[in-house]
Amino acid sequence: MRLSIAVDLNYAIVGPPADVLLQIEAAAMADQRIASEALTIWSDSPIATVRGEDGIGQRCWIRAEQWLQAEYRATVEVARDPVDLAPLPATPVRALDGALVQYLLPSRYCQSDQLEGFVRREFGRLEGGALAAALTDWVAGALDYRPNVSSGVTTALDTFASRSGVCRDYAHLLVALARAGEIPARCVSAYAPGVDPPDFHAVAELWLDGAWRLVDATRMAPAEAIARVSVGRDATDIAFMTVFGVAQFVNQTVRVGQV
Amino acid sequence: MRLSIAVDLNYAIVGPPADVLLQIEAAAMADQRIASEALTIWSDSPIATVRGEDGIGQRCWIRAEQWLQAEYRATVEVARDPVDLAPLPATPVRALDGALVQYLLPSRYCQSDQLEGFVRREFGRLEGGALAAALTDWVAGALDYRPNVSSGVTTALDTFASRSGVCRDYAHLLVALARAGEIPARCVSAYAPGVDPPDFHAVAELWLDGAWRLVDATRMAPAEAIARVSVGRDATDIAFMTVFGVAQFVNQTVRVGQV
Amino acid sequence: MRLSIAVDLNYAIVGPPADVLLQIEAAAMADQRIASEALTIWSDSPIATVRGEDGIGQRCWIRAEQWLQAEYRATVEVARDPVDLAPLPATPVRALDGALVQYLLPSRYCQSDQLEGFVRREFGRLEGGALAAALTDWVAGALDYRPNVSSGVTTALDTFASRSGVCRDYAHLLVALARAGEIPARCVSAYAPGVDPPDFHAVAELWLDGAWRLVDATRMAPAEAIARVSVGRDATDIAFMTVFGVAQFVNQTVRVGQV
Amino acid sequence: MRLSIAVDLNYAIVGPPADVLLQIEAAAMADQRIASEALTIWSDSPIATVRGEDGIGQRCWIRAEQWLQAEYRATVEVARDPVDLAPLPATPVRALDGALVQYLLPSRYCQSDQLEGFVRREFGRLEGGALAAALTDWVAGALDYRPNVSSGVTTALDTFASRSGVCRDYAHLLVALARAGEIPARCVSAYAPGVDPPDFHAVAELWLDGAWRLVDATRMAPAEAIARVSVGRDATDIAFMTVFGVAQFVNQTVRVGQV
Repeated sequence: MRLSIAVDLNYAIVGPPADVLLQIEAAAMADQRIASEALTIWSDSPIATVRGEDGIGQRCWIRAEQWLQAEYRATVEVARDPVDLAPLPATPVRALDGALVQYLLPSRYCQSDQLEGFVRREFGRLEGGALAAALTDWVAGALDYRPNVSSGVTTALDTFASRSGVCRDYAHLLVALARAGEIPARCVSAYAPGVDPPDFHAVAELWLDGAWRLVDATRMAPAEAIARVSVGRDATDIAFMTVFGVAQFVNQTVRVGQV
Repeated sequence: MRLSIAVDLNYAIVGPPADVLLQIEAAAMADQRIASEALTIWSDSPIATVRGEDGIGQRCWIRAEQWLQAEYRATVEVARDPVDLAPLPATPVRALDGALVQYLLPSRYCQSDQLEGFVRREFGRLEGGALAAALTDWVAGALDYRPNVSSGVTTALDTFASRSGVCRDYAHLLVALARAGEIPARCVSAYAPGVDPPDFHAVAELWLDGAWRLVDATRMAPAEAIARVSVGRDATDIAFMTVFGVAQFVNQTVRVGQV
Repeated sequence: MRLSIAVDLNYAIVGPPADVLLQIEAAAMADQRIASEALTIWSDSPIATVRGEDGIGQRCWIRAEQWLQAEYRATVEVARDPVDLAPLPATPVRALDGALVQYLLPSRYCQSDQLEGFVRREFGRLEGGALAAALTDWVAGALDYRPNVSSGVTTALDTFASRSGVCRDYAHLLVALARAGEIPARCVSAYAPGVDPPDFHAVAELWLDGAWRLVDATRMAPAEAIARVSVGRDATDIAFMTVFGVAQFVNQTVRVGQV
Repeated sequence: MRLSIAVDLNYAIVGPPADVLLQIEAAAMADQRIASEALTIWSDSPIATVRGEDGIGQRCWIRAEQWLQAEYRATVEVARDPVDLAPLPATPVRALDGALVQYLLPSRYCQSDQLEGFVRREFGRLEGGALAAALTDWVAGALDYRPNVSSGVTTALDTFASRSGVCRDYAHLLVALARAGEIPARCVSAYAPGVDPPDFHAVAELWLDGAWRLVDATRMAPAEAIARVSVGRDATDIAFMTVFGVAQFVNQTVRVGQV
């Protein structure tokens, strides 16, 4: 599937100049090829590019004075077959590579340690792909998609109780539950058509049968229509923008179409 | 039902003398008559007696030097008929007296505000007694009674996620869910036979059809076998002992029999 | 001091009719006399009036369909002498009446249990009035008054870390610290001139030398210019409006003048 | 400095066999050479070795049935000069490599986002090494080293309020404060002589002037007497043992001497 992506960001910097970390470029990967791409950032200072987490994608360090303005245009060819999770075999944790260990552990917004009791009790006989499919179904069914009930400090535990949220909250909860069930899980910032209202999207990636499997618990986007931007433990790592200072929203648009 | 109660407490006070608030006497109330009672506290300082929350029961203020030692013996006649909660009608919150308002609101260990989404989504068509019965069944079924997984700082939200705990945790979770469902709910410290291991017991009281209804979500004790000690918003109010200083456990026994 | 108070509330009720608890009337008390008062609530349903916490002030239960609109006009004569807290003697907790015990304990937004270490370590040699004065000075100096950094779910512990907030946050933090220092403390909703931007105000009341002492850690209003509306453990009890349903802000003005 | 290390672990596995991740070997690094080493694990199943976080040290995956028993003996040559942090220049975050970004962000036990207000307000004019030195002094002075007041779920925010804890808590708080002050910071599991009572040690590492600098805010061990075992975002990553199942403590000794 071919996606066309157009992002425009416009923020005012309040007070002294701020360093800003921007992660908005689709990542070049085996299953998503960047056909064309242009990132324009209005800045007088040089822009530094660094690798994203797990070596996926890239981030820009920007010195922003007064304004942060960026424009991103890309066409991405996603070549990813849909995968049925349920039949995938379980991998015992002791067979996992060192680089995956961090994705078994709790993080700032995914307190998997606190959800182990729930997963063991409600899904205890399942493991591997069968568990992943059951947890995804459960999150999709247990939550209501509702804007403005959660915020940037909402955790997986909060969402587990409030039973509502946006894509970030769905991803956090699924990731936390999967880790509680001994499945390595990471959060993914992404572009996908059909996200409503149009915005940056957040989904989960579960490590099953030797590979990362994209899962959107909001059911807004099938795995084959998702272009990854960045990955990480949770929203702290995959934020599209992290400001070391104070920025005020002016306007922002994210458009993702199928071409 | 006639209950015989025997409590022995023995704590060492570490450091300077400490003020201690003790709430271990069964409360004299219409549905539980104190047939006989003796509370002995070893102390050189005078002991002050004050009322408990909502005017129920009494508390002792003790000045403890080096040791806190107390012995309580009582026989209590409980005359309380079992009540079937399910058919009790709902009371709209706007018909509640001012003294009940606090029991609709979140407290330190019962974050009912965070559980409103869950209650609305899973039990939204129920109210009043039908909701109370459904929530009690849900807590009884969803949790595993397990000592040593929770502590004095465990909240209802923690228990909602861990799906296990002791009587304190069951009471906190039921109280939080009931409040989230617009039913006034308070926590109750109590004596009951059959508590295993024998200890102080904690249960909930839900305000339905104009009266407080005792509910033990652990299913260890029927309402007609429970002798209240104190009531309050949550464990902060009903603790059998609150030490303003440092106390170390030496030994403690609680025996409750049916006579 | 004579205060003129004018409040206008206008909220839209989203979805089904909602029960609303309104606490906006100045309380008639020995040190604040209501010279004149008019509360108008637009509603087709009867309005029920109930007592506030500790028997102070009153609350209205309203059945709101589509709109909640209320207007309050009052003139209040405050006759309260300023009190210098510092010389007031300490009361050992064991001398406190039963009705004060709840104000020694942690509550939803005032986790005094978690702040005991800080108070003991930094203010350990102080007690009573000297401690109250030192804690008030500390809060006033340690925080920056800043709107929009906190919200309705911000706790005293959050504010202790973020070092900023509005009147609600100052009151929560002072109350939590006082309780941690064995001084009974409650939160107070109030009217006061000079609050900027004009709004409902929140302050603390500390029990010292046998009486409640009003303290505004924001330093916006002296005790003699404050008219209490309600009291309670924290913001849960003293909210000017608690909606059992969904309400949307339309507009609201609070004007308090000195006459 | 030459350290001799002897560790004996003995745990009982309760219930079904458990996968266990063990991180107890001193890491071979430029500034700490492993002179001799023997790790013995009693197990019938093969043991898998994987890399630690940031490629530092190694972890063992063990399949434990009934017992987990391990013995570790090593001699480590630490060749690390003491560094005076204060004069080290600040690095603007925009100059940091991608691999360091995660260490600027909040994690499960180090909620640096919530402590930004404190750091800005109290240390706002400082940056880089001067800030690092000031924060270390502050943590060392503000906390009391006290066993048994914290637990495995204690966070940096809890410690910031309680003002007491053990090495894990000191490390968490310093790491959280440093990140709040825009200094990359990670937690380090380590061996050091002089830890009292003898145990695994936890310290912080701050990225200053292009290198990681070991800092022990408990002041128990100078940087030149510390042998790193593992690094990571916080205690979740650097735990000496993570059990995917249930283990019960039988006995454990850690002895670290200077030879």
